[in-house]
Parts: sequence; structure tokens; C-alpha cells
Amino acid sequence: MVVQKRIEDMRRYMDEIGVDLVIVWEPDNQFYLTGFRAISYSRPIVTLIDGKEIQLILPGLEEAHAAQMAKVDRTYVYYEQYGFRDRVLTYIDHLTQILSTFPCGSKIGVEVGVLPASIYMYLLEKGFVLVDIGEKVTKMRSIKDSHEIELLKVAGNLSDLAIGESLRHARIGVSELEFDSYGDRLLLEIASQEYKDELIGYADWTCSGVVRSEMPHLYSSTRKFADGDVVVHSRQVWFNNYRAENERTFLIGNVTEKQKDLLKLAIEAQQVGMELIRPGILASDVDIATFEVFRKAGYADFVQHRVGHGLGLSEHEEPYLRFDNELVLQEGMVYTIEPGIYVPGVGGFRHSDTVILTENGSRSITEYPRDFESMQF
Amino acid sequence: MVVQKRIEDMRRYMDEIGVDLVIVWEPDNQFYLTGFRAISYSRPIVTLIDGKEIQLILPGLEEAHAAQMAKVDRTYVYYEQYGFRDRVLTYIDHLTQILSTFPCGSKIGVEVGVLPASIYMYLLEKGFVLVDIGEKVTKMRSIKDSHEIELLKVAGNLSDLAIGESLRHARIGVSELEFDSYGDRLLLEIASQEYKDELIGYADWTCSGVVRSEMPHLYSSTRKFADGDVVVHSRQVWFNNYRAENERTFLIGNVTEKQKDLLKLAIEAQQVGMELIRPGILASDVDIATFEVFRKAGYADFVQHRVGHGLGLSEHEEPYLRFDNELVLQEGMVYTIEPGIYVPGVGGFRHSDTVILTENGSRSITEYPRDFESMQF
Repeated sequence: MVVQKRIEDMRRYMDEIGVDLVIVWEPDNQFYLTGFRAISYSRPIVTLIDGKEIQLILPGLEEAHAAQMAKVDRTYVYYEQYGFRDRVLTYIDHLTQILSTFPCGSKIGVEVGVLPASIYMYLLEKGFVLVDIGEKVTKMRSIKDSHEIELLKVAGNLSDLAIGESLRHARIGVSELEFDSYGDRLLLEIASQEYKDELIGYADWTCSGVVRSEMPHLYSSTRKFADGDVVVHSRQVWFNNYRAENERTFLIGNVTEKQKDLLKLAIEAQQVGMELIRPGILASDVDIATFEVFRKAGYADFVQHRVGHGLGLSEHEEPYLRFDNELVLQEGMVYTIEPGIYVPGVGGFRHSDTVILTENGSRSITEYPRDFESMQF
Repeated sequence: MVVQKRIEDMRRYMDEIGVDLVIVWEPDNQFYLTGFRAISYSRPIVTLIDGKEIQLILPGLEEAHAAQMAKVDRTYVYYEQYGFRDRVLTYIDHLTQILSTFPCGSKIGVEVGVLPASIYMYLLEKGFVLVDIGEKVTKMRSIKDSHEIELLKVAGNLSDLAIGESLRHARIGVSELEFDSYGDRLLLEIASQEYKDELIGYADWTCSGVVRSEMPHLYSSTRKFADGDVVVHSRQVWFNNYRAENERTFLIGNVTEKQKDLLKLAIEAQQVGMELIRPGILASDVDIATFEVFRKAGYADFVQHRVGHGLGLSEHEEPYLRFDNELVLQEGMVYTIEPGIYVPGVGGFRHSDTVILTENGSRSITEYPRDFESMQF
């Protein structure tokens, strides 16, 4: 039902720009438009939308799964097993057949930013006129509906639970990976008690110590927490594919006054961003306002990234909260607020929370305490 | 040192096909050629190789990380923070600058199967002649050197440990996600004791019960194991980016004679494949030989996939063990052997192990028991 409205929206857009067919390649975009997502490393899945039908090309081993989940009108299955060697063996064969019903010169919408060059060139060689529809799907996905918001709230709650349990084990001698796993273990136990037959996932990245925390994005390692560590812990938890991000910077044992001050500063910058964000202001406003907190304190040169990204089905979603983005924010948008500074020899400092824009302001779906006192171990 | 040899190999190939520059986009390919991999959802990283230099375009927040890890001659950093708004803000600007030193008509190698259409078209519009180098990198990556094999062996050992611990908790009432997490928790604890400052990761997929196990590839859910379940558990564990795959099908409580027979059949098919695979035979031989085990037992129609895929840095790597692949297998190749059948109303049955091809045969880096008796709970 939700998917049907999205398809109608897409078809209106196709009429507007005179597109006969849309080919959707990106897995999260396909999920958004069909309700179906598979584990598909080496076996492409393609969604095609025209004025009449939604069609899905998929590998044989996803046939039963798609029959259960995909809101589509027709499926085309390709095979790879010896027993079915006389059937269709590649997705390209199906694509060719479907495209044969569209005359040369037809206008086809594709995601130019993610569609592999090989497919794009294949379509060009067939004589089709190609236009980008990637931005349209991005725009549709950027405003969450009430169903998506319910899923995001559950993801937020679960992420709070996980981060709390991990922090309960923050102590000298625990490795980054162990720290992550304490929270994940409890998350899965509680979620298994409370939710029946649902999909839950998580990803964690913990950067501990002065050198590692200075680098904003690292995979967790077996490095063990030591006295005087600054630790930047990042976590995303997803519930039926919708993600909440929850990050906390904390201090282990005897840290310096400067480290304490910089954590307080990062917390202050985040608070400024979370209080400011609301419908009607510009994406750039939030980025610049939080940057100003760091600049006034003399740390302008130690900011390394924008203040936040959209969130939903993908790890990062456009549009971004960045100084050069003049987008007017709207109700239903979901953003991380995560201003950070990274000071050589001192460490990195960044909290991240996920907020949903409401009619007059915003509410955070991640609620684990952010205050300085709660971040010392 | 290892990376240097790979670069030399790539440069010889570039000379052979008359390519002036190679642009590497795929993250695993970049890691293979530079030793550097980042978490990079929305911030592209690009590696460029010409006859003289290896160059890296990367976002500011990866600058310190790359300085530590990347075996490259030069880096070009783009920024996104307000404070550096007068510097280069996009990777495309750096790319344009680097390409300006190559005359129109220069031949550039790209990965046509993964490079986004937008970049490909940008290069075409600049007047460059583009050729595919994706297959060359795939071919290089398919033969593992001794360093890679050492990492794979550690990954295999860790996966055995994890799968054993999960299976110790196989019982009615445990959810798929909890089952996964038991093994992951122990894996991270032991790995943190045994390895210092190393990267370890894992992914699990557990399909439990008749209906879910019939679908070869599903994300784990909160569904709880029940009496009479067939469970297909898949696990990949990676150690410093190199992956071992380890999958076991097991039975919970009172299952039917038919379910027992089909598990025995899948085990037999896997044994045939593991004994057969060696340098000198064709990829197709392994696929067809294991298929024949199922066919002779009357289950030809219930095979849904090829018998295995390459493994290393990516979840699935080419070339595949598939009936229509005439590739002659070589020493140093790494493959999963995972013949499966999926019978409606009965369940799915598949073990997977990861084998390295040796001079005269193969050895499995995953050694958890595969026998029928060990698979009943």
C-alpha cells in the first residue's frame, strides 16, 4: 500500500519528464519501490517500472523470497544450475527481452550515479535516450512517512539499549571489538523476546586511544582500551531495514583537562545543532552554526566533516547537512547531528544522534544520555 | 612489498594493452593495489595508476588514515567542512586536474562492470578512449599469495571457533539472531586475546524452519528455533579483510526421515566436490560432479545454485564454479564448496567450506565437523 503510493509518485514524475521506463539498480531504491531486498553480491536484481507494470529480474535462488515479499506485477527469473541449463541464464537476456518492446529512441530513466557503466553503455547502444532519475528517488526517500518513522523509532530504542550495555563494559583491557559485542549481544536477546519474525541488524565502529580516535572512520580492532583513552564509539542499528545512528565519545581513566574540555565542546556543538534543526531552515544553517561553536573556541582547523547526513535505508543518505547545501529542511526528514573535532595528540570528539523533523522542531529517536558526566569510565 | 609486485603486474598489463592510466573505483580492488581501505559510503575514494605514480583521491576525514596505510606516491584530498571552503571540495575537481595532464585520446583503463555511469560518461566526454581492466584485476586477485593464504587460514580458524560456539547453543527457543551472536561474542573475545591491533569482522545469516531454509539467502531474523526445524547457518569471518566462509545445516529435535536423508545427501555432494577440486581440472567439473549426486538421487530439480564462488577480500569473488565456466583451476585459488538442495515442504540443505588449491589437491581452511551425527540437536 505504501509502495503503491511511491510507484504512483514515480509514474507522475515519469509523465512529467516524458520517460517511458525506469530501470532501478540500487538495492535500497529497489526496496523502497517494491518492498523486496535480497542478499545479492554477485547476482544482479533489477526493477523496471513503466506506465502499466512493475517488473523484477532476479536469480533463481531468490524466486521464493520474492514471491513472498516483492510488490511487483511480473518476475523474470534467470538460473545458474546445470539442471536448468536450457533456461535463461543471465539477467541481461531478460533485460534485452523486456527492452525489445520499447522502440529505439524511447526515453529511459536510470540512476546515473550508481548504474554500472557496462549497463549504461548497453542501453545507449540499443538506441535509448537516458535520463537521470536518481535524484527523484533520493528526494522521495528523504521524506519519511509514518510507517517508516515507526520503524526508525524502534531502531532508535534498540540502539540506546545496545549502547548502554556496551558502555556498562567500558573499562581498561576490553578490546574495541569486545566492547561492541556486549551491546550487540543484549540487543539481539531483547529484540528476540520483544519482536517476532523481524529483521534486525547492526554495525559498530569503535576508535579508541588518541591516535585512533583522531581518525573519524575506522573499523573496530582488537586494540584494548587503556588508561587515558578517548574513545569514539559509533553504532547503527536497523529494524526491518530502517537505521538509527547513535554515537558516543567517552573517556577512560585519567584523561587530561584538555581532553575533558574538548568533549564538553563537542557536546555543546551537538546541542546547538539539535536545538536548531527544524523545518524551514536551510541544511547549511545547521552545519555553520555547529561549526561556529568550534571556531569560537579556537578549533576551526580541527573540524573534518559536515555536521550530519540523512538516514533511513542506507548508511548515509542525501541530502547532507553541509555548509554549501541551500536545501530548505522539511517535516519528515531524518538527520544525524554529529559535529566533531579531531585534534592531533589529543583525540577525536563526536556524539551522534538521529533526529526526525516534526511540524515545529525535531525529536531525537536516540536518547541515551549525552552529558559529560555520563561519559567518564 | 606485496602491493608493489601487484602494481608491477598491472603496469606490465597496461603496457601490453597500451593503456596510459588506470582508474580503480571498486574498494576491494583499491585495497588489493594500495593496502588502503576506508569506510566510505558517501565519500568516493579513487586510485589512479600510471607508469610513474600511484595517486589517491580521498576525503579529508581519511587523510590521517591513508597516511598510515596507503602505499601510494601522492594523495589529493577534498574537503567538506565550512572552515576549508576555499579548498578543493569534490573528488571530481581533483580527477579533472589529474586528467588534464593526459592528452585527449589517451587510453584509460576502468572497471566497466562497477564504475558508475556518470564517471564513465564524464571520461568519454573528455575525449578519452576507455577499456575494461576489471577482468585483469579479477584474475590477479583470484590467485592468492602466501601472505593472503596466512590471513585466510586465521579467518578459517576463527570461523570454526564461532560456528562451534553457536552450535553449542542450538536449541528450541533460541532465535536466529541470538544463535549467530553466541559465536560472534566468543570469536571477538578469543581474537582479542590472541591478536593485537588487528581487524576482525563477521557476517551471519541463519535460515531456520522449513519455509525459511528453503530460501538459500536470507538475513537472520528474530524467529526462534522450533522442534523439527532444519536450519541452514551461514557465516563469513574476516581477518585483516580476508574472508573464510563456513556454513552448516543442522536439525533440531524430531525431524523426518526425509529431512535426515536430504542432509546426508547434501553432505555427500559436498564431499564429492571437496575431494575432486584441484589444479588442472575445470571449474565446470566441480559443479557438474556435485550436481550429479543430487540428480542420481532424484533431486535435480531442487538444486538452485552453482556449487561455489571464489573468496578472499569480497563476499563472492569471480570466477565461479559453474557448469558453463571452462576455466582451468590453478594452485592458490580459493573456493567455497557448497552444493545445496531446497525442497518445498521439506527444507534446505547445504554445508559450505572454504578450500585453498594446493600443488596437487586442496586443503580446507574451515574444519568444523561436517558429518551427519554432529549436525543433530
